[in-house]
Amino acid sequence: MKTKQRIAILGASGYTGAELIRFLLLHPFVEIKVLTGESQAGKSISEVYPHLSFAGLSDLITLTAVDYKDIDIVFCCLPHATTQEVIARLPGHVKIIDLSADFRLADIDTYAQWYGHAHKAPDLQKEAVYGLTELHRDAIKKARLVANPGCYPTSAQLPLIPLLKHKLIESNNIIIDAKSGVTGAGRAAKQANLFTEINDGISAYGIAGHRHAPEIEQGLSEAAGSDILVNFTPHLMPMNRGILSTIYVTLAKGKTVDDLSACLAKTYANEPFVKIVSAAPSTHMVRGTNLCAMAVFKDRLPGRAIIVSVIDNIGKGASGQAIQNMNVMCGFPETTSLEQVAVFP
Amino acid sequence: MKTKQRIAILGASGYTGAELIRFLLLHPFVEIKVLTGESQAGKSISEVYPHLSFAGLSDLITLTAVDYKDIDIVFCCLPHATTQEVIARLPGHVKIIDLSADFRLADIDTYAQWYGHAHKAPDLQKEAVYGLTELHRDAIKKARLVANPGCYPTSAQLPLIPLLKHKLIESNNIIIDAKSGVTGAGRAAKQANLFTEINDGISAYGIAGHRHAPEIEQGLSEAAGSDILVNFTPHLMPMNRGILSTIYVTLAKGKTVDDLSACLAKTYANEPFVKIVSAAPSTHMVRGTNLCAMAVFKDRLPGRAIIVSVIDNIGKGASGQAIQNMNVMCGFPETTSLEQVAVFP
Amino acid sequence: MKTKQRIAILGASGYTGAELIRFLLLHPFVEIKVLTGESQAGKSISEVYPHLSFAGLSDLITLTAVDYKDIDIVFCCLPHATTQEVIARLPGHVKIIDLSADFRLADIDTYAQWYGHAHKAPDLQKEAVYGLTELHRDAIKKARLVANPGCYPTSAQLPLIPLLKHKLIESNNIIIDAKSGVTGAGRAAKQANLFTEINDGISAYGIAGHRHAPEIEQGLSEAAGSDILVNFTPHLMPMNRGILSTIYVTLAKGKTVDDLSACLAKTYANEPFVKIVSAAPSTHMVRGTNLCAMAVFKDRLPGRAIIVSVIDNIGKGASGQAIQNMNVMCGFPETTSLEQVAVFP
Amino acid sequence: MKTKQRIAILGASGYTGAELIRFLLLHPFVEIKVLTGESQAGKSISEVYPHLSFAGLSDLITLTAVDYKDIDIVFCCLPHATTQEVIARLPGHVKIIDLSADFRLADIDTYAQWYGHAHKAPDLQKEAVYGLTELHRDAIKKARLVANPGCYPTSAQLPLIPLLKHKLIESNNIIIDAKSGVTGAGRAAKQANLFTEINDGISAYGIAGHRHAPEIEQGLSEAAGSDILVNFTPHLMPMNRGILSTIYVTLAKGKTVDDLSACLAKTYANEPFVKIVSAAPSTHMVRGTNLCAMAVFKDRLPGRAIIVSVIDNIGKGASGQAIQNMNVMCGFPETTSLEQVAVFP
Repeated sequence: MKTKQRIAILGASGYTGAELIRFLLLHPFVEIKVLTGESQAGKSISEVYPHLSFAGLSDLITLTAVDYKDIDIVFCCLPHATTQEVIARLPGHVKIIDLSADFRLADIDTYAQWYGHAHKAPDLQKEAVYGLTELHRDAIKKARLVANPGCYPTSAQLPLIPLLKHKLIESNNIIIDAKSGVTGAGRAAKQANLFTEINDGISAYGIAGHRHAPEIEQGLSEAAGSDILVNFTPHLMPMNRGILSTIYVTLAKGKTVDDLSACLAKTYANEPFVKIVSAAPSTHMVRGTNLCAMAVFKDRLPGRAIIVSVIDNIGKGASGQAIQNMNVMCGFPETTSLEQVAVFP
Repeated sequence: MKTKQRIAILGASGYTGAELIRFLLLHPFVEIKVLTGESQAGKSISEVYPHLSFAGLSDLITLTAVDYKDIDIVFCCLPHATTQEVIARLPGHVKIIDLSADFRLADIDTYAQWYGHAHKAPDLQKEAVYGLTELHRDAIKKARLVANPGCYPTSAQLPLIPLLKHKLIESNNIIIDAKSGVTGAGRAAKQANLFTEINDGISAYGIAGHRHAPEIEQGLSEAAGSDILVNFTPHLMPMNRGILSTIYVTLAKGKTVDDLSACLAKTYANEPFVKIVSAAPSTHMVRGTNLCAMAVFKDRLPGRAIIVSVIDNIGKGASGQAIQNMNVMCGFPETTSLEQVAVFP
Repeated sequence: MKTKQRIAILGASGYTGAELIRFLLLHPFVEIKVLTGESQAGKSISEVYPHLSFAGLSDLITLTAVDYKDIDIVFCCLPHATTQEVIARLPGHVKIIDLSADFRLADIDTYAQWYGHAHKAPDLQKEAVYGLTELHRDAIKKARLVANPGCYPTSAQLPLIPLLKHKLIESNNIIIDAKSGVTGAGRAAKQANLFTEINDGISAYGIAGHRHAPEIEQGLSEAAGSDILVNFTPHLMPMNRGILSTIYVTLAKGKTVDDLSACLAKTYANEPFVKIVSAAPSTHMVRGTNLCAMAVFKDRLPGRAIIVSVIDNIGKGASGQAIQNMNVMCGFPETTSLEQVAVFP
Repeated sequence: MKTKQRIAILGASGYTGAELIRFLLLHPFVEIKVLTGESQAGKSISEVYPHLSFAGLSDLITLTAVDYKDIDIVFCCLPHATTQEVIARLPGHVKIIDLSADFRLADIDTYAQWYGHAHKAPDLQKEAVYGLTELHRDAIKKARLVANPGCYPTSAQLPLIPLLKHKLIESNNIIIDAKSGVTGAGRAAKQANLFTEINDGISAYGIAGHRHAPEIEQGLSEAAGSDILVNFTPHLMPMNRGILSTIYVTLAKGKTVDDLSACLAKTYANEPFVKIVSAAPSTHMVRGTNLCAMAVFKDRLPGRAIIVSVIDNIGKGASGQAIQNMNVMCGFPETTSLEQVAVFP
């Protein structure tokens, strides 16, 4: 490899930033040049993230201090809305993987409805490619701006899109009961996310109103060829990493659970990061990795099936998939720096 | 109160035994006379349960060493099958609350099918009263043998039975996604329940095959007046106590979410231990108590609703309800020793 | 009992406030009349603490809205410095138990040195009684203002003061290695206390500089009759409740570990809340209670001993002891409302 | 690289086995050929360790089924005593890294005293090299059998040996208060290690009698040139991975805390896996790595210092160091496959 691609991580002081760094430090074809963090600017990475103290990274700087002449690839981990403005101003030569929600919804009216303000970069939205890698690989290869999928949408769409595409399940009765680790709630100081408030308990949140619902519905609707609504009920539970989605579906007439398993097995046969398993997968199986593991089960209710899908929410659900997308965009082997084995226990 | 009722706890070395003791030590009308534990017989309670060291309890003895002449009430926390044999031999004057699954299923064929062996006390089965207190109070008052409900069935039936009885929801599409703390798995030494195997992860288990499914279906079928099958999918997660059941239902024609809430509010208006709340309840809300809290939400899917129900699995889901049943059987005020406030954080 | 004592809890929205409420709701001789919370004023308790939703408590109000005519007892859970000003303005008829650090240090210069500002109520300081109940009971009986001890100082002083008083250990080489649950860090939203930052790890903090050091040294110096410095090294670990202090001491010449055990056993023989045990106590043993359990062990190093002491940091370490002090101040039986059994698991 | 070194892991079904696999799968110069597990023989690795399902490993076999002709390197993760017998029978051409305690104590009488039976391979003991890599690198290079250090001894000796060697601290008053994650307790099914028994609590264990004490004392005595006893008090706490040792020492006459820091900084200046830091290190800093991080602090007690040392107990405390030793024994770059960044959160 000649020269390494030079990387800037905008908003590097959150958990997705840290996880990008963890993976990228092992990547042979890139080097991390710039880390930004508005409130942390001027601090060393060891102050912000002691576990990254020994990596030889430079101090955090402000967004405005970045000189993009020396940057080839930008990972954007900024809050929504800000993101649209920042990305709109980036020079044309940089490739961008955006980990926020700002470019995920193709329809800007849907965006406005769920996010409470008009989209600030509607032209750029048309250019953005939705980065569910296994299912949009060709478009990602040619993309300049990839909208990295949300964590819940990744865990739900990977099993459901093939099944809808092949008309194996009904589209009007999909229930996604998802359980997430707390890294999904971000690193901002909030009382609700204190150790003492989370430990030894579980609660549902955002019932019938979580912003990942329209993102899931967008992907499923496209697959089904018709508008789909889904039940999506997320839960917050005491673990750091992981999403387990338990998905309840109705089989299409004449179809069986084996048909579902076979379809998923075929769809993902050659995929390094999507695994069809037979026993119910635990989030432990994928912790610290870019993997998604899933299994299909017969329900006691006739004509119905249960799908269990697990990812690491900041792995395949965020930073891992972002790097997978970078690898695709840059023509690197897709698994580069993502071959790590799950960390268990 | 003249003389205190004398209590024996059979199989006191497990978590439900310890929780019975915790509550009963504060009960003014009873005294704990006998604790049994086959493998722990001869040990002091402080060896078995250091946190009960200061309560002045006597040592554990074997089952065969119990003299029932001095016992008025028996709590039975023994493994299934053993339980049927032990209870069949108890003298007629003792009141029995059985916390095992052995007398919960009225149909002994269903029992045999799910538990893998013929029922060993079929006559006694006919006499047993299912102890979901709020819904079977009159029968419990007159009962000699109460089959204390399972933890998952308690959390699922309390909201669903009134709704089915009043024909507010369809009976053919009920999905119960339940998340449980690890005390539900018991105190036996199993690799799968080690701290290291459970911490920081979640998994589904017993998919479409958990023994609490027929127990739930028995109660719902009776309420609906027809045979019902349900989806029941339990998950094991890293917390000690608590069950949160997220229940997905279809509204009966013309019915609304408000109808459901109103029905539950009316059903449980005067119940000290069942609370209808408006915000999504966390298991924290009921930890260490005999409470069940529940809330109903409108789904994004038209004509559907989401019910969230929480209990402490060894409180209302086991030992708390067992004491509530004892209070009813003995004519004590129903809340005696169960007035404790939730332990949070 | 004729009329119940009327209670105000100032600063009720933190963990010590919630724990006071949990205990006081079961107290037959008092009633909670007023809860304050500056930033939460106007909110119902169910918004602030869902687990207290069913207790029939009134909404939170501001400090300035309190009418002390109707109040007999004040528990003060306010931040330090504020506390001195607020308490200085309270009318003379109310009894006060202050859970902050503001009146714990008898020497106002020491206070100023460790808290960074001059004491704001030096006259009141002279009147304040340090509320380590077992060791200052007589003074507490007559007190109007009790300075409730800190959590770490409670766990350290209960074993060490008798041993120093009876010259059983050397005073110049005391090492207190303490491990605390996260409720000790309070309920304020801080990044360092997020679930994700605390879970599955441990760290020392405040090494050689924690504000509980001078409080411990004050008590030990008084007991020894000379100025004592100690090593006090606190650690923050992933649990909600509990402090375990491992204390390393040198035996006084000719003294044995048995002498230490005997001294502690004799000192606390009739104390309902201090227990000398033989096996190493776990924090589980005291969770949710007002108990302190301790044990003494022979070291491998000749002439040295190890003491392990456990409390619930918001029980005996804060709210439990505060109520114990109230009971003493008011002439109630000392254990009233504090008889609860440890919550395990 | 020509041919890869072929590896057998004996006793691969425990946590150290799994962690060896996690690292070795990324090692370019070796391949895992054989995994043994007596009770698990015949099972696939995905049954034993679902998180290793996708690595293409072969099924577990029994010890007696191993053909060592095709093996170059053996990692031995067997229980103590068994280990001595198994290793004694291994053919001469294999290099052995033993992760048990069986060859750590040079003095076989000390071994017999602490392990309760005579050493079963005393001749082999003379040949074994103690594998604290940074401090015994030259001997390890030439070794055929390396006794991999215990987890606690690694965390304690790395800071203490240089300080004793350079006479910077007194040797008669060393206190090591260590806090460990639960993987250190192994994967065997034990009631005491159930999630429910460990979660939300902490306890000391093996007070003044833990088998790692003589191992620590062996290393420190050699460094000091005289027999040393230490206080070593381990604690078990609710985290999966990590040991934090808080070490209390007395400065040698005329020495300062800065002298200690400078000595450690110099000793480990070129070591990739030992890091001297200034802020108190958390176990989070090293989770999933082969790192040891340490810091020295001035005590409040005059003439004393506090050292905090952290490792991942199954990383540098077991499997990581075992691979580091293998790299040294085989002449591979010492950091091969161990460059991974800490996994946080």
